[in-house]
Amino acid sequence: MTHPAPSAAASRLRLQHLRLSRFLPILDWLPHYRRGDLLGDVMAGAIVAIMLVPQSMAYAMLAGLPPQVGLYASIAPLMLYAIFGSSRTLSVAPVAMVSLMVAAGVSQLAEPGSPQYLELVLALAFLIGLMQIMMGLVRLGFLVNFLSHAVIAGFTNAAALVIAVSQVKHVLGVQIPRSENFFVTVYHLIAALPTTQPITLGLGVLSFGLLVGFNRPLPRLLERLQVSPAWALPISRSGPLVLVVLTTLVVAIARLDTTYGVKVVGDIPQGLPTLQLPLFSAGLWHKLVPTALAISFVGFMESVAVAKSLASKKRQRIDANQELIGLGAANLGAALTGGYPIAGGFSRSVVNFAAGANTGLASIITALWVGAVLLFFTPLFYFLPQAALAAIILVAVLNLLDFKTLGHLWRVDKTDAIALLITFCAVLGFGIEIGILIGFTASITFHLWRTSQPHIAEVGRVGNSEHFRNVKRHAVQTCDTVLAIRIDESLYFANARYLEEVLLNAIADRPNVRSLLLIWSAVNHIDASALETLENLIQGWREAGLAVYLSEVKGPVMDQLDCAHFWKTLPRDHVFLSTHDAMTTLSGDAPNPESPANGRDD
Amino acid sequence: MTHPAPSAAASRLRLQHLRLSRFLPILDWLPHYRRGDLLGDVMAGAIVAIMLVPQSMAYAMLAGLPPQVGLYASIAPLMLYAIFGSSRTLSVAPVAMVSLMVAAGVSQLAEPGSPQYLELVLALAFLIGLMQIMMGLVRLGFLVNFLSHAVIAGFTNAAALVIAVSQVKHVLGVQIPRSENFFVTVYHLIAALPTTQPITLGLGVLSFGLLVGFNRPLPRLLERLQVSPAWALPISRSGPLVLVVLTTLVVAIARLDTTYGVKVVGDIPQGLPTLQLPLFSAGLWHKLVPTALAISFVGFMESVAVAKSLASKKRQRIDANQELIGLGAANLGAALTGGYPIAGGFSRSVVNFAAGANTGLASIITALWVGAVLLFFTPLFYFLPQAALAAIILVAVLNLLDFKTLGHLWRVDKTDAIALLITFCAVLGFGIEIGILIGFTASITFHLWRTSQPHIAEVGRVGNSEHFRNVKRHAVQTCDTVLAIRIDESLYFANARYLEEVLLNAIADRPNVRSLLLIWSAVNHIDASALETLENLIQGWREAGLAVYLSEVKGPVMDQLDCAHFWKTLPRDHVFLSTHDAMTTLSGDAPNPESPANGRDD
Repeated sequence: MTHPAPSAAASRLRLQHLRLSRFLPILDWLPHYRRGDLLGDVMAGAIVAIMLVPQSMAYAMLAGLPPQVGLYASIAPLMLYAIFGSSRTLSVAPVAMVSLMVAAGVSQLAEPGSPQYLELVLALAFLIGLMQIMMGLVRLGFLVNFLSHAVIAGFTNAAALVIAVSQVKHVLGVQIPRSENFFVTVYHLIAALPTTQPITLGLGVLSFGLLVGFNRPLPRLLERLQVSPAWALPISRSGPLVLVVLTTLVVAIARLDTTYGVKVVGDIPQGLPTLQLPLFSAGLWHKLVPTALAISFVGFMESVAVAKSLASKKRQRIDANQELIGLGAANLGAALTGGYPIAGGFSRSVVNFAAGANTGLASIITALWVGAVLLFFTPLFYFLPQAALAAIILVAVLNLLDFKTLGHLWRVDKTDAIALLITFCAVLGFGIEIGILIGFTASITFHLWRTSQPHIAEVGRVGNSEHFRNVKRHAVQTCDTVLAIRIDESLYFANARYLEEVLLNAIADRPNVRSLLLIWSAVNHIDASALETLENLIQGWREAGLAVYLSEVKGPVMDQLDCAHFWKTLPRDHVFLSTHDAMTTLSGDAPNPESPANGRDD
Repeated sequence: MTHPAPSAAASRLRLQHLRLSRFLPILDWLPHYRRGDLLGDVMAGAIVAIMLVPQSMAYAMLAGLPPQVGLYASIAPLMLYAIFGSSRTLSVAPVAMVSLMVAAGVSQLAEPGSPQYLELVLALAFLIGLMQIMMGLVRLGFLVNFLSHAVIAGFTNAAALVIAVSQVKHVLGVQIPRSENFFVTVYHLIAALPTTQPITLGLGVLSFGLLVGFNRPLPRLLERLQVSPAWALPISRSGPLVLVVLTTLVVAIARLDTTYGVKVVGDIPQGLPTLQLPLFSAGLWHKLVPTALAISFVGFMESVAVAKSLASKKRQRIDANQELIGLGAANLGAALTGGYPIAGGFSRSVVNFAAGANTGLASIITALWVGAVLLFFTPLFYFLPQAALAAIILVAVLNLLDFKTLGHLWRVDKTDAIALLITFCAVLGFGIEIGILIGFTASITFHLWRTSQPHIAEVGRVGNSEHFRNVKRHAVQTCDTVLAIRIDESLYFANARYLEEVLLNAIADRPNVRSLLLIWSAVNHIDASALETLENLIQGWREAGLAVYLSEVKGPVMDQLDCAHFWKTLPRDHVFLSTHDAMTTLSGDAPNPESPANGRDD
């Protein structure tokens, strides 16, 4: 992809455009929309709509909201994200994790289903939108980097379980007390087992089976039948739609709702949502802040992870800060049009991508379809059983369970695996927000713990080369009077005393050593605490007749030593460029009269 | 210092002794006490007692306790520390910082001066003793390493100011409401200025002047008069004693207490403290836990810092975990003999060391002196004015102020200086415990922030050597088709995405590059998040026709890559031992038919 050399004016124009499109990513694709992209966008938009209509109603139910709120949250947010979001294929709408967090946070302040609950949810969405836009503008997107893979995996698994058990009551047709705790919910479910409604359970199990069939065996069957992928994908992804149509028909024809007490969705108001301002109340907003912060962060984290993994497949770039702005705009849109907090969903986005979405137009088309459903088809949902919606959620979240990661992490880095388990248990035991916080703290603590006890190796010359490696791992030559030690970590307060101990012991074990060479190839930074410890050590050794030298000190560290007046403690010519130079001079292998260290004697 | 080769039996005995003396450091010196050490120990013990008697009464006052409690805390704890503590010269007894924290914590639960207050303080000392012993036994001594020099300096300066302003009311002779906040106390003091008692103020200012005179000019004068150091030290350290005698005489003769309302110490019960069990009450203990934890930690931190700096001067070793046990035993002793929480004090320990203390015997002698004071001399303290005690505290803590450190830190590492300022302001604004916590969090955050944006340098060959350095800092040779990049940080979740971005941009800027060599001399560890990012990058580059190589991968990291099945992504023979080998092979400088990378073409 080479461009013809642009004229100065053109390049100025292009720069301006670049600057504007940094804040309005839609300008990246809309002005030069290619006809070839249209088919993919239209197809993907329709297929995602088929998934999204039942899913959004199910997630709204999970969030303790009437089903139409899920549909309302699937129109304006999609359009706003298409304008402001940096991913072209991310499907932004209700997601399971955020729905659960909405229920957990707001149900402490109002009764789910009450008008006040809905008002609080709108205010929450508004707050989340504001927070995300602010975080994006002050460029806090980097924060997402501080959640390790292990913490995210532990969190996802635990949240999937929490969501799954929250849906079992709908499948069993039982009533249990609301609880945010996984174990309490399981206990209540077991206690309520005797009151199971057999017809509801039957509907639920059949729904579950149908969806699992659509998920796994159907695509393989279609492949074997050599159905073209252009047809196979929409067919295999229409499972929820088929389920909705079938179960609605069954319930409506047999009147299962009145005769067997099967719970149905009931009346859904027809028509598009109206514009409305959220409730402004400082007292209530204050109480919503922790939940809003947690959702802003978790929603963003999930969205960026999905967006990045899809963008890398097409070598597109995701700007984390622009993602925050896109999600924030979408959440503001949800708040102003009667929706509820949204994020980028994993499975929907993957389908959107696989169905050929090329630009944000796919999302706009999805939104138009959802609008059409609201305008014309809501009466058809009256007999839709809640057990079917619960089955949709169950299948979606059980796909998130992933236990292979644990084994992989255990092999790479045991502390990562432990961080995963800690996060997993903490989310189950203490809920999503505290669970993530505990996992985050654990992963940071493990990291600090490791850097506080760095690897420190004695090195020797490999063969006749200029290369020096660990004496314990390689066959190397060493010198009796020179101890060459490589320090494998930046030096800072947490490891200064450990380093002191290791070095003191190493010197104590080697009475013959006259020169100590510290190889700083892995020392990327030194802080004041470590520098003080080092100066004291060098001072002490100098008094004990031991000369200290450094080699491979990096530029940035050298700058620091300059500023810290370190050369008062260690003469500057005790620093060698390479370990080879140092060892040649110090061990007298190659007598070199011009060598810096030769002239002095400490 | 060479030992004659010991017989097997003797060396077994010695080992057993070593094992026992690890828990009872007194066995290190008592069984083979040398007569030559006696003079120093007796002198030092007496001189420290001269300092300690007024100091301990003053600190007890600072802690909101009657003066005799300070004396009680200066007997048993000193003896217990001599048995269990690992430092031979640390002077363990009441200290300013801990006294302030006792007052801040316990005054929220009971009125200072009330019997309940005293009971709570005893329970607090007991709790601290238990906690420190537990921490020592489970070897949590390393925790102290996580407080950086900057945080400790910021904390010490702020705490010195908080303590100083808390004493000004005694010097002015005014009454102000109790407050833990520095700024509120200053405000109250200014408001109370008009009610200043001139005679008290006069006494206070004269006391302050006398102590400052003893501190600075007197030692110089004695030196000029050629007084032998054996006499000069006791004379110059007897300032507090002289002050106590003088001001007591003045107040007693002029009856300043009844005529001018000068506050005096009053009746101090004569005799040694009695053994007593602290109050056991789960409810109260529960409330004391946060304060106890904070004091356990701060007291330990201060003590270890002093003990280490003194031990290094005599090449003795301090075991942080044994220190915890020694301090814990001393605090338990304080709790059982009517004392209050103690720690190792800085100035007293320095005097102890300078006066010639060789072993823990010096501390035992100090304790005997304090016991003698309690048995025979307490009636003499009746007329001792509180303003004189306040002056003793003021001079002691103002010596802790140190603003030079800030400038030094600013030169070495700006974030260290900022952490100091944050801790300083947080302690002044929010109190000691929250202040330290904020400072700690800030220093950890700065450290993580730095490692999340590591230094990444393109390197080239220095001259004709085998050494490679940053192209921006050294005159080096590079090769057009091989990009050699040195990554100056361990790879973990917080910097994985930053690394990805930098590497992607570096490759995008160099269309001619066919091979990318990543030099891992500074990569000390890689976690699962970073490994996944790296595998995705390598996969992508391979598809784009770019071959990736590694060099100078350290042993521990190589082990990790083995376990993680990394060689599925990158052939194992793409790892070179040295950068020199890699560049020689890749740039074709030295065609080597046996070189590992030559045979394959990605």
